[in-house]
Amino acid sequence: MQIDHIGIATDDAAGLAETYEALFDAPVAHEEEFDGLRVVFLDFGGSYFELLEPLEDGTISRYLDKNGAGIHHVALETDDIEGALETAREHGVECIDEEPRPGAWGHDVAFLHPKSTGGVLVEYVEH
Amino acid sequence: MQIDHIGIATDDAAGLAETYEALFDAPVAHEEEFDGLRVVFLDFGGSYFELLEPLEDGTISRYLDKNGAGIHHVALETDDIEGALETAREHGVECIDEEPRPGAWGHDVAFLHPKSTGGVLVEYVEH
Repeated sequence: MQIDHIGIATDDAAGLAETYEALFDAPVAHEEEFDGLRVVFLDFGGSYFELLEPLEDGTISRYLDKNGAGIHHVALETDDIEGALETAREHGVECIDEEPRPGAWGHDVAFLHPKSTGGVLVEYVEH
Repeated sequence: MQIDHIGIATDDAAGLAETYEALFDAPVAHEEEFDGLRVVFLDFGGSYFELLEPLEDGTISRYLDKNGAGIHHVALETDDIEGALETAREHGVECIDEEPRPGAWGHDVAFLHPKSTGGVLVEYVEH
């Protein structure tokens, strides 16, 4: 698996995208409103920062209230997301999503519970 | 710039490496003791998870006490770390390291303060 993106919770996706473009020379690759979020992907040579700004109450707004802005999750690209979930279950990992579901940018996604993965919220992504 | 690695704070680098190898098919690429830490790099096709286990009191042990295990920072690879720091300063970013310093795996590193980068602790790495 490869690192597909790092998800970053923010209350100002547009402003943060501008800062990151200036500092890291990472252009905006994709923007959309999805699942109550403004989502902005910045391209770091084929992997991405995914900026997540809540437009309504939900998991990201609650994350911001509790933790403040910062890194929210890491996403790993797989070409077999069902197989990856099956492997996780075989190792006793609690899956937040038992089946893949539609995610941002038209990809299939599924999250693992961080208590099974060293406190790291891991997302599987299949393009 | 490209994503070089994600730094993960843990109190059990060996155990977490075993879990990640099993779940993500990510082999150990490098291990060392550095700066009071056990450091284990797992290879995700040319970018890495860097597991950081404190062997003595320091920033990572304090991070674990405050936040628990999880994602600590993201590292971006650059071939001009002094230039990257200069660009950051020009944009008013507070740099934790004003000059590059020796980091794990023999690389030069410098950290930016998360208050300037949307709550994200960013490390520049030059191999």
